[in-house]
This record gives sequence, structure tokens and C-alpha cells, in this order.
Amino acid sequence: MKNKIENVEDYLNTFSTEFDKKLFDLIPKSEKFSSKLFDAMHYVIKVGGKRLRPVFLMEIGQILGVEKAHSLRTAASIEFIHCYSLVHDDLPAMDNDDIRRGSPTCHKKYDDATAILVGDAFQSLAFEILADNKTHPNPEIRCSLINELAKSSGSVGMVGGQMLDLEAEKKKLDLDQILQLQRLKTGELFRFSCLASCILSQRLREISIFEDFASKLGLAFQIKDDLLDVEGDEKQIGKKTKKDLGRGKETLISLMGKENAKKKSKDLIVDAIKLLETFGEKAEKLIELTNFIISRNK
Amino acid sequence: MKNKIENVEDYLNTFSTEFDKKLFDLIPKSEKFSSKLFDAMHYVIKVGGKRLRPVFLMEIGQILGVEKAHSLRTAASIEFIHCYSLVHDDLPAMDNDDIRRGSPTCHKKYDDATAILVGDAFQSLAFEILADNKTHPNPEIRCSLINELAKSSGSVGMVGGQMLDLEAEKKKLDLDQILQLQRLKTGELFRFSCLASCILSQRLREISIFEDFASKLGLAFQIKDDLLDVEGDEKQIGKKTKKDLGRGKETLISLMGKENAKKKSKDLIVDAIKLLETFGEKAEKLIELTNFIISRNK
Repeated sequence: MKNKIENVEDYLNTFSTEFDKKLFDLIPKSEKFSSKLFDAMHYVIKVGGKRLRPVFLMEIGQILGVEKAHSLRTAASIEFIHCYSLVHDDLPAMDNDDIRRGSPTCHKKYDDATAILVGDAFQSLAFEILADNKTHPNPEIRCSLINELAKSSGSVGMVGGQMLDLEAEKKKLDLDQILQLQRLKTGELFRFSCLASCILSQRLREISIFEDFASKLGLAFQIKDDLLDVEGDEKQIGKKTKKDLGRGKETLISLMGKENAKKKSKDLIVDAIKLLETFGEKAEKLIELTNFIISRNK
Repeated sequence: MKNKIENVEDYLNTFSTEFDKKLFDLIPKSEKFSSKLFDAMHYVIKVGGKRLRPVFLMEIGQILGVEKAHSLRTAASIEFIHCYSLVHDDLPAMDNDDIRRGSPTCHKKYDDATAILVGDAFQSLAFEILADNKTHPNPEIRCSLINELAKSSGSVGMVGGQMLDLEAEKKKLDLDQILQLQRLKTGELFRFSCLASCILSQRLREISIFEDFASKLGLAFQIKDDLLDVEGDEKQIGKKTKKDLGRGKETLISLMGKENAKKKSKDLIVDAIKLLETFGEKAEKLIELTNFIISRNK
């Protein structure tokens, strides 16, 4: 396998086409059950996504020598968690978004009740996948993955961050509070995607490197997301922009200033890449993906 | 420990008071995080519940010689799944219920967004608890529990049943379809609560007995629930009754007739209890709890 990536966007497109087949494959078959629920689950996957968390997990897995089938299932579980969170976040009671990646959001295509259940079902599915011995023959490793994913996605992780985000619409947060919010809301899943391969390969000494890497990556990703919300092209991004501005919410950009935020995100990526030096040439693809986090335009 | 129960209601009240302490104890502490999310999680537990799934799990655990601490954590995980499903089901987009056990439902006390996140957080918590080695030292057993609970609660289990239930408001179902719906919506979690102790004790030969027992118990429970919806006292039950009637939905009662349904539920309980003969005196408490499923008035 080549260590270089010619064009990151093409690479991600090829990756997600392949990866999405695995996601479809892991959704249970629908005979005897409500076809609407399964249609809606398929719809959410079909609408697509950049599959960034999976690609980072897979690349780190390759560096650490994880078997591809194991990385793939673990990556699927994290993407199902990410998908459930998007489906729930888009609901009228939450962010009230009608469009995601240029298509109607799940509750617009179906209805709110279906979207709630699709999210709930994706969450169960994520843990079911990790508990299965096809994810790794060692059950201690599977339990460790489940424990980490449950913490990353629950009340002291992603869900806790989402709650802070909702509350941020009512009170002005300072920079430290916004950093805390983002560390939970997006950072925790990035953290899991970067350390899962350390768990799978039992290279526990690498955990601290990849936790450090993930925290820089996650924050840089969020700054870029906020920049795209302010500056980006709605058509290209495929969702409504300038949302936070419209709601009078503080963001990393409003608190740091646009230029400072851009500089900060670049510094974070430089520092993240420095952490990968220890892996030499093996990390070349991961470095290019890391750079892409702030060079992307959607 | 005595094998007899003097009064089942008192016994369940004592059990749930003790058990709820464990539930509170397992909710993560809230420093640094949104206190609203944790308040709402505590509120849902404080409102209470009959804790029937936990009590069946614990009693079967005692018969099969499971360590109490292990049963207790497993019972907590199933109750958190049950709680999440109630919080989501009560939402305006789903059953739109304002009152549960005489208190405002989670979204009425807080708001819809908080209720969605409370449900999501309870689901992650359930799997986090099972993945921890305090639930059982053998990780293979923990993975097996997680696998079963994820299946029971996901798209081919409880969530799938809930989806069929929503669709049932729009089309008339026949008896077989209603039985399938109930088997998923309530039966699957009863199934898990009855077989979890077989997994914990590695008494795998007992699984088929307890699966059979659970399917009878679950259906009898559902018939009784439907009867209470038609005949019960709203104040005593603590939630709105005659809901299905108002929505023109078919139920086990509307399709079987009230008297047939009553007879059927009694027959199911008699058959379920017969399955327990093999455990002799040890099963006396479990038998009394099983009888209570149809003698209860709330």
C-alpha cells in the first residue's frame, strides 16, 4: 500500500464509498420488522458523510498494525454513534436543521418520531458491533473499546457537550467554557477514533501520543468548522451556514477573532503532526489527512 | 434469606428503594459539566418505577447463584435502557405523554431537547456499566451481556417494536402483528432480564427455560397493561389511560375481547410458573412475583 496520497478529496471519496458498503452491511436486515425504520437507517447512511473519524481510526490502525477487519468494524461503530448524534441534533427540538449534505435531514424525509428511533437504533448497533468477537478475538479488548466509546459518547462526553451547546444559546460563554464544550461535543469522539487502534493493537504506550494528537486535531477541526460556518459556501457545505451568528451564540471565532482562530488552527495542526514524527514514513498518509482538516472547504 | 414474600407490593417498594440508590450511584457526577443534564437524569430516576425487569433479573440471579453485586449492575443497565425508552416514548413526537407515575414527564419538567439527551445518555450508560469489570470478572460474559442487551433494545428489538407501534396508529393490525409488535416492544427487554442471570452464572442450559418463561411473562404483562389502560384508575396508575382507545389503535384487548384476554393472561402465568418447578423451593419468591404481573392494579 502506498504511503502517499495524490489528492486527499479523491482519497476520502474512495474511502467513504468502500466504507459505506460496510455500514450498509452492518444494518440488520428488515424481514418481519418495520421497513420504515430500516429505510430511514439506510437513508441516513446514503446521504453520506466525510467519514473523517473512521478514516483516522483506519490510518492509525495501519500504522500500529491492526488487522483491517478489526479496524473496519470499530470504525463503523464510531460512525454509527456519530450518525445517531447528527440525526438527533438535527431535530426541531435541538438544532432544527432541514438540510444536511444537500439532502433533507432524517426527520424532514421521514418524521420526528422515526428520526428519534433511528438515532436510538444506531446507538445500540454501535455497541452490538463492538461486543461481537468479529471485532477482536480478545473480549477484554472489546470491553475496553465499549467502555471508552460509551464514556466518549455519553453524559460526560458528546451528549454532555451537546447539552452545554444548547445552554449556550441562553447564556454567553467565555473562551474556556467554549473550549470545554467543544472538547466534549466533538473532541471526545475524535479522541476515541484516535485511541481505538492503540487498544486494538494493545500498544498502550501510544495512547498518550494519540490522545494528545486527537485533542489538537479535534480543536483544529472545530475551529475550521466554525470558520466554514462564517465564511463557507452553503451549497458546497450542503447545510445551512451562519447558524451560530444568527442565534447570537459565542463561538471559537467570535471569541478569538477570525485571524487568531486561523493561526491557532494552523499551529494545532503543526503540533499534531510533530507528534507523528516517531512513526516516520509510515505516518505520511496520516499527516496528509491531518493537514486536510484545516485545508478542506466543506 | 426467606423464600416467601408476605406482601408483593411492600416487597417491590422495599426493593426499588434500595435499587434506586444503586441507579443514582451509577449516574456520573456532574462537576465541570452541565448540571441540567444530570439533574434531569436524577429526576427520571426519582420519579421512580416498579423496577420489574430488575427484580426478575435479581430473583433469577439468586436462584442460579449469581453474585449479588453482578446482578445489581446488570439490573441497573437494563433499567437505564427501560428509562431511556420511556423518556423518548413520552416525547411529543412519539406518544406525547405529560404525566408518568403522577409526575410531569421529563420533557414537561425540562424540555424536549433535554429529554432527547437524557435518553441518549442513559443508553450509553447502560453499556458502559456492562463493559466494566465490576459487572463480572470474565470479559467474555460481559461481551455476551452487551451483545444480548444491544440486540434486545435495538432495531430488531425494542426500538423496532416501538416503530411498529407508531405505524399501528395508521393501519389496523391483526392479532399476529400485534403479538409481534409486543414481543419486540416489551417482550425483548423481559427476555434479557430473564436470561441475563443465566449468562452471568454460565448456566447456559437454563437459557431456554428462561426464554420460554420470559415470553409468557412478557405477553401476560402486556395484556395486563392493556387491561389497566381500559379498566384502570388513572390516579392509581399515575398516567393517562384509555390512550389506545382514543387513538383507534388495535390492542390485544380489542382483538381478543376482554374476557378472553384475561383468561389468556392467567393461562400464560400458570404455564410460566410450571416452567419453574425444576427449581423447587428456591423459586417460591419468583413464583409470587410472576403471579403479581397479572394481579397488580397499577
